[in-house]
Amino acid sequence: MGRSVKGLAVLGSTGSVGTQTLDVVRSFPDDFHVVALAARRSVDLLADQVSEFRPSLVSCEGSREEKATLFSNGCVESSVEDMVRDDNVDLVVNAIVGDAGLDPTLAAIRAGKDVALANKESVVMGGEMLTSTAEGHNTRLLPVDSEPNAIWQCLRGEEGQVARLIITASGGAFRNRPPDELANVTPEEALDHPTWTMGAKITVDSATLMNKAFEVIEARWLFDVPWENIEVVIHPQSMIHSMVEFVDGSVKAQISPPDMRLPIQYALFYPERLHNSAVERFNPVKTGALTFETLVPERYPCFELALEYGRRDGTWPAALCGADDMAVQLFLDRRIGFMDIPVVIQEALEAHKPTMEPSVDEITAAAAWARERVLAAAER
Amino acid sequence: MGRSVKGLAVLGSTGSVGTQTLDVVRSFPDDFHVVALAARRSVDLLADQVSEFRPSLVSCEGSREEKATLFSNGCVESSVEDMVRDDNVDLVVNAIVGDAGLDPTLAAIRAGKDVALANKESVVMGGEMLTSTAEGHNTRLLPVDSEPNAIWQCLRGEEGQVARLIITASGGAFRNRPPDELANVTPEEALDHPTWTMGAKITVDSATLMNKAFEVIEARWLFDVPWENIEVVIHPQSMIHSMVEFVDGSVKAQISPPDMRLPIQYALFYPERLHNSAVERFNPVKTGALTFETLVPERYPCFELALEYGRRDGTWPAALCGADDMAVQLFLDRRIGFMDIPVVIQEALEAHKPTMEPSVDEITAAAAWARERVLAAAER
Repeated sequence: MGRSVKGLAVLGSTGSVGTQTLDVVRSFPDDFHVVALAARRSVDLLADQVSEFRPSLVSCEGSREEKATLFSNGCVESSVEDMVRDDNVDLVVNAIVGDAGLDPTLAAIRAGKDVALANKESVVMGGEMLTSTAEGHNTRLLPVDSEPNAIWQCLRGEEGQVARLIITASGGAFRNRPPDELANVTPEEALDHPTWTMGAKITVDSATLMNKAFEVIEARWLFDVPWENIEVVIHPQSMIHSMVEFVDGSVKAQISPPDMRLPIQYALFYPERLHNSAVERFNPVKTGALTFETLVPERYPCFELALEYGRRDGTWPAALCGADDMAVQLFLDRRIGFMDIPVVIQEALEAHKPTMEPSVDEITAAAAWARERVLAAAER
Repeated sequence: MGRSVKGLAVLGSTGSVGTQTLDVVRSFPDDFHVVALAARRSVDLLADQVSEFRPSLVSCEGSREEKATLFSNGCVESSVEDMVRDDNVDLVVNAIVGDAGLDPTLAAIRAGKDVALANKESVVMGGEMLTSTAEGHNTRLLPVDSEPNAIWQCLRGEEGQVARLIITASGGAFRNRPPDELANVTPEEALDHPTWTMGAKITVDSATLMNKAFEVIEARWLFDVPWENIEVVIHPQSMIHSMVEFVDGSVKAQISPPDMRLPIQYALFYPERLHNSAVERFNPVKTGALTFETLVPERYPCFELALEYGRRDGTWPAALCGADDMAVQLFLDRRIGFMDIPVVIQEALEAHKPTMEPSVDEITAAAAWARERVLAAAER
């Protein structure tokens, strides 16, 4: 093929992005060597992945018995920190869910590895530190999420003359639900996303638009664009994944049917583009219309709340991520209602005592503090 | 400003693209020096342009009296061939209408000048010859027309991994007119374009979709994409000016409110992008919907006809351009009906005896022959 084989560490390999990353590897078996796999739970699926891809390093949080089976077939147990440092790993795919993603991202950067980043919480929590550390170690943060990936594609070959980023949002599961009905929606309803099939956490974050606020924050750091030049527009079809307006008024949009394998593949092969017959093509006439609507703030209280705290310096964004992580978990566990999510997050953030110019430990601690605070509030 | 001043020769300066090119120059007075202006008629407007921009070289086809006034204020009469060779000219803007544009394009290339090309007939008539001559002289053909300009923008920074070009078409003035009413439409109706304000020839070509066939032919040569990988889709809003699908399935679209000053400016400044407050910005919510429809061939007989002959080698495409030029003129003069346009063109093409691997003179002669043939048919 003429391309060198890339060694991959896939963190969060049993989640939605993790499994789709391995799908892409299946489509291009000669181009990748899966060196390491990490997952927390889902040990059965991880065991299947180990049998299929034969990684040398594996990390999981299973029981002693589960591990005994898992490590019986040649692979070695490893910490995530050790696997990202392994010499055979060229690219780390960080598909870990939630605030736990920060440490591995930082470890990979410090080990001089490029990171294909699906874990946007890393950047939300530690944006300035991560991007400056990546620059210092001459490594790249390659966004896998469809919206920042679209922006990255639109910026390709351009020389930074950006006027505006226009991030699209499907509007999530409740775009057309009357706001007064939102208090009683169930987790099942929130998980029924209109256009994307994703993990539970991000699907709920899509219904609240917390996810979109995270993308604004992520874009601000990854693409070094001022807050006031980042907009969000509701685009129910999820075909245009985002747009960039340049200073001359020209807008570029990246379009494709919603399928995470495309942005994953783009990040894995960048700067090369390769034919993948598994990916559906955009058919403009079949699509018919690409529509746009204003984001109605009353419907999405998490959005403004998240931007207010996410734009602040110090440990504020970390507290936001920790609070959201726990609030979504509590909603999925039916312990709080859908419209309680912004309430408990706001309550935690109002009580947060921030540290400015925080260390990584202080960032992590702020997230942990906010999780506990939200949990305690729910238990009251 | 740090940029060097670019010397411009504007050919067809009194036409739609010509006047808009000078509008862009007005917005950036420190960046351009108008060295030469050429126009056929519209001598009054040309005289105003000469007073304002003070070119040293001017070409026009006015009467002796008109010329006496024109050349009284310091500029020198020049042939188009001489002005494109002038040492002070860095970039030639070819905004000449119709088949007369070929010779100046070729002269500019041979003089080693980049050409900002609004005259797509040049490329339709002599695509292979022009592009190979440009390569041999290390000059560039920079498309000014909104659709190929959009493709050029979408290809920026990409490495040629193109699967498909998707050229958009507004559908012209008669997109919603029942086909059986088209025989009786007037020139005034044909000139009432739904989204663009352009010159008369190209507006009628838009109503017949001849213009869109020309763009397919132009794109085939300018971007070296096989015929079968170029598609046309009706997009009534004229906001998406064209799209490129790459081999991985990712599509890039270039979007902006219809305003020729944007693609003109892009070609004049390439690779730089500069802020221009005169250009309206894309507002997705205000636009509401970007829609797509299949091109219905029965409504646009010129389209298939033009592609059939335009794809052939030799003098066929030149005969097509000449025949269309005269047919549109006869329609505007009310000497033939709207639905006679494809009939007289086809009749001429069926009578054409092509020359293969033609010289420039043979290409020009084929166009002239076809013009005469169409005129004679109309006079019968």
